[in-house]
Formats: sequence, C-alpha cells, structure tokens
Amino acid sequence: MRLRKKLWAEKEITTNDKMIKQPDELKGNWHKFFKNDNPIHIEIGCGKGRFINENAIRNPNVNYIAIEREDKIIAMALKLARENGSPQNIAFIISDAKELQNYFSPGEIRRIYINFCDPWHRKKKWFKRRLTHRNFLQMYESLLGSGEVFFKTDNMKLFEFSLNEFSEMGWRLKNILLDLHNSEYGGNIMTEYEERFSEMGMPIYRLEAYKLL
Amino acid sequence: MRLRKKLWAEKEITTNDKMIKQPDELKGNWHKFFKNDNPIHIEIGCGKGRFINENAIRNPNVNYIAIEREDKIIAMALKLARENGSPQNIAFIISDAKELQNYFSPGEIRRIYINFCDPWHRKKKWFKRRLTHRNFLQMYESLLGSGEVFFKTDNMKLFEFSLNEFSEMGWRLKNILLDLHNSEYGGNIMTEYEERFSEMGMPIYRLEAYKLL
Repeated sequence: MRLRKKLWAEKEITTNDKMIKQPDELKGNWHKFFKNDNPIHIEIGCGKGRFINENAIRNPNVNYIAIEREDKIIAMALKLARENGSPQNIAFIISDAKELQNYFSPGEIRRIYINFCDPWHRKKKWFKRRLTHRNFLQMYESLLGSGEVFFKTDNMKLFEFSLNEFSEMGWRLKNILLDLHNSEYGGNIMTEYEERFSEMGMPIYRLEAYKLL
Repeated sequence: MRLRKKLWAEKEITTNDKMIKQPDELKGNWHKFFKNDNPIHIEIGCGKGRFINENAIRNPNVNYIAIEREDKIIAMALKLARENGSPQNIAFIISDAKELQNYFSPGEIRRIYINFCDPWHRKKKWFKRRLTHRNFLQMYESLLGSGEVFFKTDNMKLFEFSLNEFSEMGWRLKNILLDLHNSEYGGNIMTEYEERFSEMGMPIYRLEAYKLL
C-alpha cells in the first residue's frame, strides 16, 4: 500500500505539468511563465492544496504558486489542480520556505499565505523555525517589496508570537481575528486542516500584515 | 444601608487629601503638584483602586493619577490609599476619559493604563465608547507625546477590536499576550476584577502600545 501510494505520488509529480521542476530558473521571470502581469500570490506549505486550488478558480486574475516540502502531500494538491482542469494561473514547487530567495526576485511576490504552519512550540530554541519568526519576516519583506502576509493558525501561542513579531518588525496589522469562524469576515477559504479543527469548535486566529515601502 | 454607604463615600471623598477637586487647575502643572519631575502614569477607570495603589507603593519614582467616574467606587480606592499611608506619589480624580484633555497638557502623561474597561459589545454603534476606539487613541496620542498605553481585558472581542484599532492608527504593539496568567510575563499587578475572572479560568488579554514621535 505504501509503495503503491509512493508510486502514485511519483507519477503525479513527474507527469503533472503544473509541477515546476527548476523554480530557480524562473527567478525574476514568473510573469513570463504565466504570460501576464497579474500579481503573484504564494502559499508556503500548501498541504493537500484545497486552499490554493480554490483561490486559483475564484481569482483568475491572480497567479498562484504553492510551495510544499512533502512529495506525497503535494501530489494530492497537484491531482486536485488536474481535476480542476489545470487552471492557467497555478503552479507548484516542492521545496522549503528557506529556499524562497532562490526562486523569487525582490518585489516579485505580492502576497504570501501561511496557513496552519508547524507551531514548533515544544522548545524555545525551535522558535526560529516558525514561519513568522523575524528572520523569515525579513526575508518576506525583501520578496514582497510593498506587499502583504495573510496568516491563519489554530495555535494560540503561535498566533501570540506572530502578533508580536510582525508588530515589532514594523509591519502594519489589519483584520486581526481571534475567532475567525465566529466573526463577520466573509470570503474565507478553508484548508483541510482548518475544517477539521473548526468543526471541533477550536478558534481559528487570522491576521493580515502589511509592509509599506 | 445604601444611605450609610453613600454618606461614608461622601466623607471619604471630602476629607481625603488625595482627592483632586479641581484637576483642570493643575493642567500643565502636575509636576509642581507632585514636587518632582518623575513620569506621570494614569489609570482610566481605577475601580476599587488596588492596581494603582499597589503600583504607587512599588514604584515611588513614578507619579500615579487614577481617574474613576463612580464616587462610591473611587471612595474605596481613596480609603485604600489612606490605609497605605497616603503615598506622596498618588492622586485621584472623579471624572470621565472624555475629559482628560481638560486636565493634562500635550505630552504631560508618560503612560496610560486601561484595565478591564467596559467592552460595550452589545451594539456596534456603541463601539465609539470603547476606551480603545480610534477617537480615544488620537486623544491619548496628544496627551502622551511619546508614550505608551498598557491595556488589559478579559473580553476577547474588545481585545480583537483594540489590536486592530491600535495597529491601524500606527501604534507599535509589544508584549501582546492572549493568556496573561499562563505566560512568562512577570510583575503583573492584578485588579480586583482580574483576580475574580482569572480564578474562573478565563484568559486575560494584555498589550502594550507605543506611539513614537
């Protein structure tokens, strides 16, 4: 079973033309790749891909790039894109957040989505691995130029940490929500994880952070 | 009983020399009143006064001014100050937050404490009455010059609102806590209300907001 799953994932990754094998070669040239000047939004850690695929369908005038470390998981996101008719405005990269600067030029990205990333809460020395640690925020700042980060989590301590990191690094916060699913916020697209957790009655935290030039 | 309580409160207010009867006459001259140049911290809505009295004892190099609307309540705060030996660095005003500009000159205050203020949550049109509404923040900004607001509440919706108001008005947030009593934050002084609520296991939210000149 495990082998069959692995083989299936390998096949999806190899044959799906939404999979970008050499993203470093597209650095600075994503607009040529998408054949338009539409803004580029990326999701770091797309998981099974419901969020990014749904966004791509709803917003044809935005280009979406999903980054995910796990082959077996990104294969599911790729499959979903294929089942959606492989929209022109979506692409996938197997990689890690740390590598983003190898794939994008300064200012090339307009928005970064971080949804339910690993809270790395057990040890303080792990906080540096959090995707909202100030070291990452500095990297995002250079990739975004004037742009924004949209962040969701179910982990209160991670959210608290993130509020402080963004604020201390001089980002302007907006639409902060301490219980997204009991708010008036409209247009939320749920991730698979989010659906499971909010069904259990857990609050979902959300913020938007803007870096003005 | 009610009459006796009223008479007692009246007597405390009339005779306690920590009670400032004409605060407007001290506008711009609080340093003369305190006979030093120590920073001035105020608490808007001091309730029964445990927080401000405890602060005055712990920090003799800070001058504290407590504002409270309700006579019967401020009488208890005055009594507590008297029992503490009427420290030189504390004073009380019966008034409303809206009146602050009549009592303080621009830049005269270094820090404003807002602890467990009324959340005014039932109607949206009441949000303007919240002490962290942007209209109040603008007033605080002029009173503080370069200074800070320290805010605590047990009301999640009020805290969410406040995070957004401060951030959108360009304040820099620090030490945001979504569960103060389960955090590593040291040196917290509890209000009477806070003790009751945190004993019930309710999370207490806290933030510091800085306005840089």
